This record gives sequence, C-alpha cells and structure tokens, in this order.
Amino acid sequence: MPNSFGHLFRITTWGESHGPGIGVVIDGCPPLLPITAEEIQAELDRRRPGQSDITTPRKEADVVEILSGVYEGKTTGTPIGLFVRNTDQRSSAYNEMKAAFRPSHADFTYQSKFGVRDPNGGGRSSARETIGRVAAGALAKKILALANGVEFRAYITRVHDIAMPAGALTEFPTLEQVEATAVRCPHPATAEAMIARIKDVRSNGDSVGGVIECRIRNVPVGLGEPVFDRLEADLAKAMLSLPATKGFEIGSGFGGSLLKGSEHNDLFEKRDGRVRTVTNNSGGVQGGISNGEEIVFRVAFKPTATILQPQQTVDLQGNATELMGKGRHDPCVVPRAVVIVEAMAALVLLDHAMRQAGQNRAFEFPAK
Amino acid sequence: MPNSFGHLFRITTWGESHGPGIGVVIDGCPPLLPITAEEIQAELDRRRPGQSDITTPRKEADVVEILSGVYEGKTTGTPIGLFVRNTDQRSSAYNEMKAAFRPSHADFTYQSKFGVRDPNGGGRSSARETIGRVAAGALAKKILALANGVEFRAYITRVHDIAMPAGALTEFPTLEQVEATAVRCPHPATAEAMIARIKDVRSNGDSVGGVIECRIRNVPVGLGEPVFDRLEADLAKAMLSLPATKGFEIGSGFGGSLLKGSEHNDLFEKRDGRVRTVTNNSGGVQGGISNGEEIVFRVAFKPTATILQPQQTVDLQGNATELMGKGRHDPCVVPRAVVIVEAMAALVLLDHAMRQAGQNRAFEFPAK
Amino acid sequence: MPNSFGHLFRITTWGESHGPGIGVVIDGCPPLLPITAEEIQAELDRRRPGQSDITTPRKEADVVEILSGVYEGKTTGTPIGLFVRNTDQRSSAYNEMKAAFRPSHADFTYQSKFGVRDPNGGGRSSARETIGRVAAGALAKKILALANGVEFRAYITRVHDIAMPAGALTEFPTLEQVEATAVRCPHPATAEAMIARIKDVRSNGDSVGGVIECRIRNVPVGLGEPVFDRLEADLAKAMLSLPATKGFEIGSGFGGSLLKGSEHNDLFEKRDGRVRTVTNNSGGVQGGISNGEEIVFRVAFKPTATILQPQQTVDLQGNATELMGKGRHDPCVVPRAVVIVEAMAALVLLDHAMRQAGQNRAFEFPAK
Amino acid sequence: MPNSFGHLFRITTWGESHGPGIGVVIDGCPPLLPITAEEIQAELDRRRPGQSDITTPRKEADVVEILSGVYEGKTTGTPIGLFVRNTDQRSSAYNEMKAAFRPSHADFTYQSKFGVRDPNGGGRSSARETIGRVAAGALAKKILALANGVEFRAYITRVHDIAMPAGALTEFPTLEQVEATAVRCPHPATAEAMIARIKDVRSNGDSVGGVIECRIRNVPVGLGEPVFDRLEADLAKAMLSLPATKGFEIGSGFGGSLLKGSEHNDLFEKRDGRVRTVTNNSGGVQGGISNGEEIVFRVAFKPTATILQPQQTVDLQGNATELMGKGRHDPCVVPRAVVIVEAMAALVLLDHAMRQAGQNRAFEFPAK
Repeated sequence: MPNSFGHLFRITTWGESHGPGIGVVIDGCPPLLPITAEEIQAELDRRRPGQSDITTPRKEADVVEILSGVYEGKTTGTPIGLFVRNTDQRSSAYNEMKAAFRPSHADFTYQSKFGVRDPNGGGRSSARETIGRVAAGALAKKILALANGVEFRAYITRVHDIAMPAGALTEFPTLEQVEATAVRCPHPATAEAMIARIKDVRSNGDSVGGVIECRIRNVPVGLGEPVFDRLEADLAKAMLSLPATKGFEIGSGFGGSLLKGSEHNDLFEKRDGRVRTVTNNSGGVQGGISNGEEIVFRVAFKPTATILQPQQTVDLQGNATELMGKGRHDPCVVPRAVVIVEAMAALVLLDHAMRQAGQNRAFEFPAK
Repeated sequence: MPNSFGHLFRITTWGESHGPGIGVVIDGCPPLLPITAEEIQAELDRRRPGQSDITTPRKEADVVEILSGVYEGKTTGTPIGLFVRNTDQRSSAYNEMKAAFRPSHADFTYQSKFGVRDPNGGGRSSARETIGRVAAGALAKKILALANGVEFRAYITRVHDIAMPAGALTEFPTLEQVEATAVRCPHPATAEAMIARIKDVRSNGDSVGGVIECRIRNVPVGLGEPVFDRLEADLAKAMLSLPATKGFEIGSGFGGSLLKGSEHNDLFEKRDGRVRTVTNNSGGVQGGISNGEEIVFRVAFKPTATILQPQQTVDLQGNATELMGKGRHDPCVVPRAVVIVEAMAALVLLDHAMRQAGQNRAFEFPAK
Repeated sequence: MPNSFGHLFRITTWGESHGPGIGVVIDGCPPLLPITAEEIQAELDRRRPGQSDITTPRKEADVVEILSGVYEGKTTGTPIGLFVRNTDQRSSAYNEMKAAFRPSHADFTYQSKFGVRDPNGGGRSSARETIGRVAAGALAKKILALANGVEFRAYITRVHDIAMPAGALTEFPTLEQVEATAVRCPHPATAEAMIARIKDVRSNGDSVGGVIECRIRNVPVGLGEPVFDRLEADLAKAMLSLPATKGFEIGSGFGGSLLKGSEHNDLFEKRDGRVRTVTNNSGGVQGGISNGEEIVFRVAFKPTATILQPQQTVDLQGNATELMGKGRHDPCVVPRAVVIVEAMAALVLLDHAMRQAGQNRAFEFPAK
Repeated sequence: MPNSFGHLFRITTWGESHGPGIGVVIDGCPPLLPITAEEIQAELDRRRPGQSDITTPRKEADVVEILSGVYEGKTTGTPIGLFVRNTDQRSSAYNEMKAAFRPSHADFTYQSKFGVRDPNGGGRSSARETIGRVAAGALAKKILALANGVEFRAYITRVHDIAMPAGALTEFPTLEQVEATAVRCPHPATAEAMIARIKDVRSNGDSVGGVIECRIRNVPVGLGEPVFDRLEADLAKAMLSLPATKGFEIGSGFGGSLLKGSEHNDLFEKRDGRVRTVTNNSGGVQGGISNGEEIVFRVAFKPTATILQPQQTVDLQGNATELMGKGRHDPCVVPRAVVIVEAMAALVLLDHAMRQAGQNRAFEFPAK
C-alpha cells in the first residue's frame, strides 16, 4: 500500500506538513524490546530542522510520543503508535503555492492524480513525512544491534562537486566522526569545503544536492530472497522512496561496469575462520542475499527544489505565471537525510531478518 | 513473496535452469485482451541465447506454451500459465560447480541460506528465470500500448568504457534502430566499437558489463503513489531485481547532484495544450508520480561473473581451491538484457495503471 | 499484517484499552469524499458503552478526531488518521487479571505467544480495538452509498434462545426500526423478550450471546474474485476477526445443506429488465462474485466471557486459583456489535469495489 | 491476489477444467523437506473423480508432476511447480452451457464481471481448481507432521438430514476409520445410511449437501495473530473459498450462542504438566491464537448445483429458456471435499507457524 513499507516489520506513516502532526504505526515489532521515547528522540533530533546553521531556520522540536504498544518500558508485540505534533504552522508563507505549481515539486502531479491537494507546506508530499520513518528506524536499528550487533553508518561523500577524496576513509567511520560537522561528512577538510559551498549557494537563494554513502557491518549471511525480493532491490526501492533521490548503486555500482570480470569478481578465501571475499565489489550482496561482508551503497540527491529565486511556472488553469520561493528551506537537504537513509536501510534489513527468524519472540533481547 | 512481483498485475515465476522448464503465472491480467503465443515468442526471441555471434552459443529455442487463461484467442481474466521447456540440459559441464563456490555468483549465499542448492547451471539463480518476466512483459506492453499508446524503448549506451557520445540520440529511437546491431545500441558507430570490445574480451576468456537506458513515452499523468510506492522506487526495485545489476538512476541521476537547483528544476509551461516541463531532469516523475513527460532511467550491469579463467575460491568445506569457468556463456549479458529491462518497466507501469483504473474490464481493447 | 485489513482500502488499527487512546489509519480512501467528524461520530455512538441500560455502565464518550487526510472537508487521497482518546481508565479494577488468566479470554494465549501482555482491560485484545473499524466503516459505507446506493442493515435475530420468528421481516428493515430498541432487533415483541432475558442473566452475574443477521442491498454485480478472494470468503474472515464470534453463514447457510439441489438452486429469470434469481439461497453471491441480489449473512456470537461469578483458573505459574469477574461489562455484547458487523461488511465490499473501479478518482461524489 | 493464498507459505493456482491441465506454484516451502510425487499423489487420489460408486463416473487419473523446486528428493527453498494434466476433456457435453447460465453456478457472475468466460466445464470456476490446493496441502501437512506431529482429520458428520449421532465419536478418528467408507463418515451405521441417501437422490437426478467436521491435534500454542489475522478468521476464509460452501463454525459455533457464559467458558486447569482447558467450547483458539487444545471446526456444503433435471434459466441475452443438466457429476461433493478441507486447514496453520518460526531453515526435518 502507498503508505506502508515492509512485510513482517511493517510501518504505516500518516500526517501532513501543516496538520496536527505526523504519525507512524509499527506493526510486527517483536515483543520484549526495551525502548524509551528518549532513544527514538535521539534519532529524530538528527533529522529535525534548525539543528545547525546550514539547515532551515524553522524551529520544530519534533517531540515524539509513544501512544501504544509499549508496556512497562518494553514492546508487547502489538502495534506501536508514535506521534509527533506539528508546532510551527506558518502556512501563510505558503499561500502562493495554492495558486501555482512549484517547479520540480509534487504539486502538479498530486493535483492531477487526486484532483485535490493540501497546499500547506506540500501537505503529504512534505519531507516531514520521513519523521515516521526515522522513528521506526530507531527501533529497527536497536533490534538489529541487540540481536546481531549490526551497525549502520551513513555519511555524505559529495555536496555539489565537492567530494571526499578516494581512499579518505580507511576504517568504518564512527558516529562521532559523522556527527562532528554540520554536514555529516567524516572527512574534516572536505566537510569544511562542503559547508562553505552550502552557505555560498544559500546566499544566492540557490540550492545543491549530493551523495550519501551507507555502510552496514555485522550483517548475518542469508538476508534477502532470490529473484524479486533481493536485498539490493529492496534497498533500492527504500532509497528511491525518499524525497529528492535520483539514483542508487550498490558495491561497485555504475563504476563497476568499467571493470572486466577478471577484475570485478570477488574471489573467495577462508579468513577469520569463515568464508570471506577478498574484495567487495558485490557490496555485501550476491544473488540477492547478504554474504556477510559489509553492505555498501550510495544514494544521489538532487538539489532542493525550493529556491529563493523567481521561476517560470503555470497556475491551476495552465496559464503562465512566475513563482518566487518563500519560506525557510534547506539549501541542501543531504545532511539531514543521513539518518533517514540509515532508518530505511534498517527497516529493509530487519524485515528480511524477521523473514528468516520469525515474527514473534524470535529475538532474544538482553535485560536492559 | 520472493517469487512474485506486482500487486494487481502480479506475476509468479518458477523453474530452474536445468529442470523440465521455466514457468510464469500471470494473475490479474484484464480480460478480453487478444493475445497469441507468437506475440509472446517475439519478445522471448530477443532474450534467448544463440541469437547472434556475441552471445552464448547455447541453443535454446525457448518456445512458449499458453497453458491457461486464454479462450478463443482472448484473455478471460483468470490466471495465465505460460511454460517454456528446457531443451539444452548439458549439466555435465557444470559438475565442478557442485564442489566449489563460483566467485560473484549466488552459490555461496544460496548454500548458506537454504542449506542446499541445485548446482545445475545455477538452478533457480540462473538468468533463465527472466524468461517468465519477458513473457509476462509482452502482455503488459501490449496492454499499455493498446490502452494508452505507451512505448518502451531500452538500448545500450555503454559497454565497458565504450559509450554512446552525448547528444547522439536526437529522437526517441525506433525498435528497428535498436535491433539493427547485435549489441542493441542505436548509434551504429558506437555499436561497432562495442561489438569489437566484446569479441576482444571473449578471446581472453574475460567479460564486460555496461549500461542500459530505457525511455518510455505516452505515459499517462498520475501513475505512482505518494510516499513508498513511488514510480521511481518501484522501477528501482524492478531493475535491481535483475541479475548482475549494480545501479539505477532516473532523469538527471547521479549527475543531477552536480547541478544547482536553479539549473536542475524543470520549469512548467503550457505546450501542446497541456502542462509540460521545459526540461526533463525529473525523468518523467515528480513526487513519485508520472507527470506525462518521457520516463528516462538507466541501469548499470556488472561484467558477467563466469569467465574462462582460473579463479581462486573455496569448496563447501571452506578449503582453498581453484575453479576454471567452463560452459558456454555470454561475455556480455547486456544486449540480451534490453528486452528484460523493458519487460520489468512495463510490469511496473501496468500495475500502477491498474491501481488507477481497476482490475477488470478497465481497459477497452480495440477489436483484433 | 496482523493489524491491517483490506488491500486497496486498507485500515490499520492501533491502541490499547487503557492506554492513551485508540487509532486507525485509513490508506487508500478515494479523494474528494466530503466527510465530517460528526458523520463518523454518529456510527461510533452506536458502538460506545453506556448507551442504554442493557450495556456496560462504563461511560466513554469515544470522541473521534480527524488528524490527517482531510482538507477543507474533503478527503485528499492521502492516509486518514483518526484518533479516539481513552477517558475512563479505571485500571485498578483489573489488577487481578495480571496474576491469573481469565477463562475464555485472550490472556493465556497472548502471554504464551508474546511472553508479555498488557493486562489493563485486556490491552490490545479489548473490544475497544473495534472503534477503529467502526470509524473506518463509516467512510466505507458513505462511499458505497454515494457511488452505488448500497445500504447495509445488520440487526439481532437471536439472543440466547429467544429468536425472531421465521418470516417476521417482510421487508428490508429501516435503520429506525433497528435502532428503536436497545437490543437492535427490528421485531418489537422479540426485542422486548430479548431485553428481559439480558436483564435476567445480568442479575445473576451471567451473560448470553446471540446471532446477528446482515443484509446489503443495491450491491453491483461483479464484486468478489474467483478462487481465494471470494466475496463470501472475505466476509467470513471479516466476521470471524471480530471478538466473540464463533460462526458465519451466507444465504441458506448450514440449513441449506438440508435441501436438495432441486430445492436449493436459484433459478434465473428476467425481472425489472435485468437478470435476477427467483430465490436467494445463494445469499447474493455465486462463484464468489456478487450477482446483484441482496447479500444476506449471519454471525454467531458466544456469551460474554467476563461474568461476575467465581471461576476456576490458573495463575501465571500454572497453579490453580479462582478469579472473580469485576469491572463493568456487557451481559450481552451483541447489540453493540451490530454497527461493527456493518462496518466490516462495508470494508470488504468497498475493497472489492475499488479492485473493480481503481483506487483514485474512481468514484464520482456529488457535491456536498 | 485472487489466485494466491497464504503469506509466507503461499500457493498460486492456475488452469481450467478443460484446458491442458491444472497447476500450482508453492512459494516459500522450507528447504530440505523430503518429498516425492507419490506422497502428493496419495492425497490427490482421495480427491479425484471416479474413486467410488457414489462419485462422478468421470475417469481422471490426476497424475501429478513435480516440475521445479525439488533437488535429489528434497525441497530447495525455491518455488515448487506442480502440474496435473487434464485427460478427460469431453467438452461436447458442455455445449449447452455456452448459451445459457446454469442456476447456482458461476456462469452469470463470471460473464458479468469479465465480459467473457470459458464455458467448458466451468473453466476456472470448476472444482478441478482445488487439485492445486490438495497438492500443496500434502506438503503443508507433511511439514507440520514432521515438525510438530500435527494431525488433521476431516470427515462427514451429516449428508442431507442424515447426521452422525451426538457423542458417536469418543476419540480422534483414525484415517482408516474415515477412509473405510466411500462417504468418509467414521461412524459405519451412519455412513451406510448416507450412501443410501446419495444413491437415492442420484436416481432422481437430484443432489444433496452436508457438513464436514475437521479436528486438528498437537497444535502448538501461539499460532494466529491478534485482531485481523486470527486463526479462526483465516480458517473461515479458507473454508468459504471452497466451492459450494455456505457456512463455517468453530468450537461451540452457532450452538454456542444458546449457552450462558457460565456454561460456555473454558476453565483453566493444570493437566499433563501444562495449562489446559477443562472444556473446549473455544475450539482450540482464544483471542485468535491457538491455545494448544484440539482445533475443531465445521463447514456446510450446499447440494451440488448441477442436477439432471430441467431447470428454468435465461440465455446470454436474458431470454427465458430451460437447461437440462448433462455430463457426469457428483450427486454429493462432500465426500471428495474432505481432503480439500484438510489441505486448506494445513495451509492456514503452516502459514501461521512460519510467521512464528521464520521462512527458511526454520524446521528441522528428520533424515528421510
């Protein structure tokens, strides 16, 4: 269904940008997981607006409430309802949106498909919808961490044309390294240049995009299904379901097609007492199924569609008009998207893990 | 489910590389569609081995039989069972596969996940599984063509590092242009160089990959759902579910993140009496929903994993060994994958079209 | 998924008996349906406790809030979030439930399945969960009424052994006739006897069950799918998913197996200008598909499990103990279940109608 | 989807009565299950026509072929394709069906829904479709027997008005007792009377229906999901998806509503070292979840719609006409339906068991 994701660990998100709030229902969470609102909040805080001087100055605390599914600090196996109230509802800033279609936004397609749309801040097409994903992702990450020690680490490798140098990362970056800069690039010199670029385009009322890389380690062998529900296929869908994404690649990706088979194949060896590959062009997935190596993928984000410059467009009657972006927007959404990428990846992996292990009581959680 | 794809127009594929044959069940095909085995066969012939001197010399006629769901030449709304018998079952060539894991194949992950695998020609992980997709895609393409005039055109833009020059295509290429060369690149000079490269790597027992671009025109406005079932998300999943794929991008793709918002946004104008965009960086999809412009996406394929060179690997016990590729394989799978890409794209679009229009009697087909 | 129902018009319910509240997300509601909280409230009021002197004296206003999916009084095609806050949280009355399993309740099975349960008022297994179903059913009924004039009428035909006489109903009963008595039996004399029986068993701290019949008219021909998703199969699932139900029958039902084929077959005739059946033993469904006749089915409800008498049971350690029902309960849940039966039937029919007609803009709603 | 059943253990059936054959794809079968065509055949033989002198004299061997998913006698975790070729295709006997709608058959509703139908033997609406269910059920029963010792036993308790006396069965009947008579009633005296009744109505070209009871023992505690996917809800759907069924009840069923709560409640006790109920009015399910007691349910079947008597009907243009049943039909389908009821019950239970235990490698099968 349009607003649900996952099969055994399924989330359903609801709520609009300028309505009462944003919610998510998590159906299929294993019971007895210790969870607090604070743990979920910590992830939401990485996504919320106003967290640094390169994001939108909108101030929304985005405080999460747990409305169901948790009893005495632990999940019960019943659906978990989470809710984040909207507080910063300055919809007057959006009045013009009602009369004309914003270029490269969802206004025209929503209006055409449904015959109606909520123009306040984009309504349902707003990136605020991803709040529910991040909240659910917090649970998914915790389950996988407790059960298998799985770790997710997403970070920015490129903003506009400023890219981290090849080989800059010698190890799996720490969360601290990623969070050290507002731009969430674990290479400090590159991060500095990225921030300068973002501030520069903002000063011109313009915007930029970039690329996020995500690495996942301690993935059990065997996640993913043959044929259609391949792990990389579900990851690709998850990432392309995020606003502003234009591409996905895993392992060697597009560049891999520049290699010959003799260069690209990941030879097997016995290492650390188990079957390993010498290289990881596969990106941790072979035949659609995780092989125990690090999962590595990248996601391309287009520049923010809202810019503070006049743009040619048409009104609801199709007449030519001009629209001047207003409101408070991110000149680059990529830094705030890092935690969303991790969340979606965790949802995909957990769903596949539960297909292997079963829905209920399948995970043994250590006492809190 | 692992072996099903789609919601309202759903296909389920079954069968192994060296078993009795490959089948597909199509559930949800609208009734009264005129269809013949010959029409399906024409698409299968574009996929089958042995069709040119740059593909595998294996000879399989891949003849399709319609076993159910068609009455007096028209679909009845009941499930359509299609079957292609396997004929070239030289499994002796594959004996070594049983004892060792082929690098960058699915042997290790299948064995780890299921505790068993059919080693004959890769069993279920063989690309022969895509026969069912192409057969089902033939129906999907016909329905969309009859109902809306939708046209799908996939072709190769790059083999190894030989790429079609930018701007080489001024128009939507014809099927004849694509089929004119064995490599299915509509730019003759590039095609020639690609074929030479493929023959060259084959002579060294090596392999190459490449990139397929797919364009779709006459797409109705309004296909795709907000949030999770975005059209580009479902296309990404469809493409990454194909063997040997490593990446997907739509519209401006990864390159789009090198532009600023003021360069990337697709301005609206009234053209040909309807709302159009001036540029098409969006690739025909905005907010997850088709906007009526051409859908344009690209898929990256890695080099064929099977090479006729000795490779280091391990056996089922994890001991180091060496495996020498045998059998008859494509040095480059990309030319045969063109029709598979079109088929998967058609499955995605038709499923979304049926979500709009309903499952039964929704499409009015002209008399045959 | 456990907490979702439907495919194209899908609802997901969440919330526990004594938590903050009960919610439902409706995904797939067609856009442009005019809807108000008052219309939904009217249906909830038929379900809520304390509405008459034969229901539980618990007072819960069960006020519904629309939190998303409605813009300027009309649905937008995006998910509709509804929420009903719990107000009467006297969980002290339930303390004993924590220590022992209530007979014929879900305590033992929840505890065994999940290893944990929320004992307050049954938590998620409480019939308060059906609030979400009734709220969603209000929308489904309105859509079907506007689009096709479909009418749903459920009522009680039996309480304990007090049954409406055969042939008592000569016509499709009106809503007023059903609502005329607290017991929702449209035959006044029988209703009076039923009410007396309910008061009688209540005075002994005991309980009774009964049978609900539901009739649906103006059903379009063609709803339901061959083979597995037959209309009667989906209705059966919907009804047996309600708490306290033990049986379902359609048309002639169990009694139909006492007839011979020559007596049971519904002969065809042309009537009112269209193909009709002379009798309706089929209950409006043939081959799993609606034939345009009235849909008629019946649902059996067991007596309320909570009784105010001491009962033998075991505690969490399996030791014998005794449990004395406390709290405020319905001696007979059937009168309040009438609107729930209608709601579930409407969800089933609308889902099938949308499969025929498509998800979006498929229904033309008259201006409000 | 219309022609699929189940979530983790999912079957998809295809094929028409008088086409090339009937098939089923089983997706999600755990790997390493030892299975032979003979084991499946044994179940099909209990369903096939011509097995006794009270069934249709049509002779169809219904020989099953395994076309995929099994390697060296064991399942591989990939989809299992089964096929049964049709051999007795005397469609001339059905010519009249083409011109007029058979009363209480699916002719009219299929024609109305799809605008077309295959009139040969009912096409897809034929009970031959259940071949695929029985074949898949054979695997499901074997898995549950090996993994948990679960046993399914269905049998006839009533034909027309001839019913097994109350209390006739003191123990769980054996397969031999059920198979001892052609009518599959384990009470010999009743069976004799049933057979006489069936022969009697057949001599008049008429037909009868009846009731099947199914008992399942050694069911693990914890199968079934709260709220919508209750075990009894899924069983009800499974049974009402069978041709000719009109009702379903579990445990006390419709009769249970004649008891008071104090009589109906299943008190808990410790017995055999575990928590048991003293009575089993619940039929083995409480709160939608199995409690470890025997699951007991009943299914009502209407009399066979095809009778060898002239019947009033209309033709495709709606004009009155008369139709005389021809062909070779069962005067009572109930004896052949026993194995189908068991199969569907097994599919439901296995699907829920896999939700608990996971899809792959979750069941440890003893060496063959």
